[in-house]
Amino acid sequence: MRKRVAIIGAGPSGLAQLRAFQSAAQKGAEIPELVCFEKQSNWGGLWNYTWRTGLDENGEPVHCSMYRYLWSNGPKEGLEFADYSFEEHFGKQIASYPPRAVLFDYIEGRVKKADVRKWIRFNSPVRWVSFDDKTKKFTVTVHDHDTDRTYSEDFDHVICASGHFSTPNVPFYEGFDTFNGRVLHAHDFRDAREFRGKDILVVGASYSAEDIGSQCWKYGCKSVTSCYRSAPMGFKWPDNWEERPALEKVDGNTAYFADGTTKVVDAIILCTGYKHYFNFLPDDLRLKTANRLATNDLYKGVVYVHNPAMFYVGMQDQWFTFNMFDAQAWWVRDAIMGRIAIPSDKAVLMKDVVDRVAGEDAGKDAHDAIHYQGDYVKELISETDYPSFDVDGACEAFFEWKDHKKKDIMGFRNNAYRSVITGTMAPLHHTPWKDALDDSLESYLQTGTARAAAE
Amino acid sequence: MRKRVAIIGAGPSGLAQLRAFQSAAQKGAEIPELVCFEKQSNWGGLWNYTWRTGLDENGEPVHCSMYRYLWSNGPKEGLEFADYSFEEHFGKQIASYPPRAVLFDYIEGRVKKADVRKWIRFNSPVRWVSFDDKTKKFTVTVHDHDTDRTYSEDFDHVICASGHFSTPNVPFYEGFDTFNGRVLHAHDFRDAREFRGKDILVVGASYSAEDIGSQCWKYGCKSVTSCYRSAPMGFKWPDNWEERPALEKVDGNTAYFADGTTKVVDAIILCTGYKHYFNFLPDDLRLKTANRLATNDLYKGVVYVHNPAMFYVGMQDQWFTFNMFDAQAWWVRDAIMGRIAIPSDKAVLMKDVVDRVAGEDAGKDAHDAIHYQGDYVKELISETDYPSFDVDGACEAFFEWKDHKKKDIMGFRNNAYRSVITGTMAPLHHTPWKDALDDSLESYLQTGTARAAAE
Repeated sequence: MRKRVAIIGAGPSGLAQLRAFQSAAQKGAEIPELVCFEKQSNWGGLWNYTWRTGLDENGEPVHCSMYRYLWSNGPKEGLEFADYSFEEHFGKQIASYPPRAVLFDYIEGRVKKADVRKWIRFNSPVRWVSFDDKTKKFTVTVHDHDTDRTYSEDFDHVICASGHFSTPNVPFYEGFDTFNGRVLHAHDFRDAREFRGKDILVVGASYSAEDIGSQCWKYGCKSVTSCYRSAPMGFKWPDNWEERPALEKVDGNTAYFADGTTKVVDAIILCTGYKHYFNFLPDDLRLKTANRLATNDLYKGVVYVHNPAMFYVGMQDQWFTFNMFDAQAWWVRDAIMGRIAIPSDKAVLMKDVVDRVAGEDAGKDAHDAIHYQGDYVKELISETDYPSFDVDGACEAFFEWKDHKKKDIMGFRNNAYRSVITGTMAPLHHTPWKDALDDSLESYLQTGTARAAAE
Repeated sequence: MRKRVAIIGAGPSGLAQLRAFQSAAQKGAEIPELVCFEKQSNWGGLWNYTWRTGLDENGEPVHCSMYRYLWSNGPKEGLEFADYSFEEHFGKQIASYPPRAVLFDYIEGRVKKADVRKWIRFNSPVRWVSFDDKTKKFTVTVHDHDTDRTYSEDFDHVICASGHFSTPNVPFYEGFDTFNGRVLHAHDFRDAREFRGKDILVVGASYSAEDIGSQCWKYGCKSVTSCYRSAPMGFKWPDNWEERPALEKVDGNTAYFADGTTKVVDAIILCTGYKHYFNFLPDDLRLKTANRLATNDLYKGVVYVHNPAMFYVGMQDQWFTFNMFDAQAWWVRDAIMGRIAIPSDKAVLMKDVVDRVAGEDAGKDAHDAIHYQGDYVKELISETDYPSFDVDGACEAFFEWKDHKKKDIMGFRNNAYRSVITGTMAPLHHTPWKDALDDSLESYLQTGTARAAAE
């Protein structure tokens, strides 16, 4: 009997897992039987854009947290697949900060080529997973929306790849219940043009706050006020963007901040982060962790220490993304296929987690954090046949990116970086980000004439 | 061993069920052990207002479909509890179309008096229910968000009272994915003031469309365009409200209708109804039905024909509401306590369903439908000790209400009706609905001076 493996989610992490197994099969190995359960009607996870918010056409929580006009907020050179370059996909090198549709196309290109769609059951949210200590099998219960039917199947392994940027963390502030405008979480943000001419309040000081505020600015809001709990983002903002300390409350349409200042606003956008959330997992299988580089309870960042037949992919906070998911997926594949041994002593697994947490905590700043995660990626890659690549070079792209943001927060996407996979320099994009209102793939891939190629 | 009964949901239906059992206990009967699982942090179901949309503070789909400034859209005389009058609760008779907060207070008053809160586990969504054919027990698996713990318990009966106006039916129309404004379902509508000065499109021709359009009109939107698939609502709308036939598509901010006309709009509100949706139930326990007076698969409107140990309360489309839930809850209680026998022949159960469907289908219009449901309420009440009341009198209030709407859609809430429980005439409200911008309980309960009392 071949082993049966359930993969939950067909986003970047789940697709990496399918590609990892397919790669082994392609090289002649016998691989387990794979079933990937995907809640949405298509693959791509967060990158599968929908106009919907709240609940989807099947009554399921909408997975997508992306919005129209979203461009990558980091250079593509930091996330390029080692086994499938941008040049292979597009037939040429492209500029460094692609819009969502371009990255979706790239993600899809690899898995189309690998022909893994046959392993995915779409419109199939997992309702519950349980593990039987006697049989050592997982029972996965699924709702198939295409037939409106529920069923259960048994598996030897479960790989949870359902992401952790879909369940919003939504704090309450006094006055939200009587605010006379829209209060929304970033998860439900879709079209910046809704806020044209408006004074918006952005609560938070991380990537969502920075990017959603920038989108609203780009598409013509009247002003952005952003507020922080610990520290300001500290970029050189445009004149109509102001940072304030923590929001204290709202009264009518007036926001009150910790420094005693106030601001009348039309809408409030909560960029207050996401939760690791698994409503289909019982206590003995459910990861509980903060959003950090060294998660709780995952040996090598992927093996659930309380049940090593269960794996998690992509549950870390992320500098590295697609390529890290690949490193993890190849490693998990080899663990399941018996090519890598997982220590049988739980204390060894726990010690690994403790060491990783200590390693992260020893870092002083973002520079250290990037190196820390780069080293993690290198560690995993060195133990599988995932194509080795210049991880340090990718780190360098991240450092440059951070400098570019510091210099010009509304202009950093106009820069270009060198691919660590093909060694090619990216072209400069034909239009500065702030003037490029059309975020379509067609528009992005037009060969530039307005700006000179890099170098 | 006492029987154990699980009740899913502590909204009007679940609370009616708790009150029904408590009433029997009060009269000296030995009642089963009750556990009511409630997803929200408080009782009241839909009537428990929240500013939140999408997912709540625990990551669960928001149950509430109500919005600020919502007043009852039917006379309170049609829904008064037979065992707890408005006069008993408020110490006086009150006007006929109370705002949400007033009705919440009334619902809560009865169950506080009955002291049923001890049976409710809050922040406890049910994840899964299964039935074991051998033991004849239900296993209910629950997530307790207060402790972030999942657990399972066994029950002899499950009563599903989770409502069916919380999971939105959200159709896609061409152009929604590129519309440059907000597209939302009525379920996510919260504050009409968000749409002040805006041209809004309301898709649908039922209660939500009528009431949300009216709210937006009352609170200063620029115009309302509503559109219908089968027939216009046909009320005498204000000058800035226009009915159009079916929406065909959207292009940019322009909506196209079936008659070839167009309208530029700022926001689209989908008043396209709700789905019966039970993501915690397997096929063998899950009700599948249209939203109608005679549902599929429920003997006497409450017993699940495929497993008569399972009950559903409040799953019908509704003219009667709180008082019908009571009639059902008392009946279910008596069935569980062995006071009423459920036929053991499944064919008899199925025949009952067929007859009810035929009975509803024989009706020609709303008048017949109201009588049909009134007769159903009378039928159930006659088989239990629920206090008898003048159901035909309540039907009369509904007929008057429909006439009042026909005469003046923005003024029908200024009318008053006679209680069928206490026989008292309601006072006229102190302020016409269109001028009463404050929807608080305090404001509503002020004794009127501006308008004379009725009669």
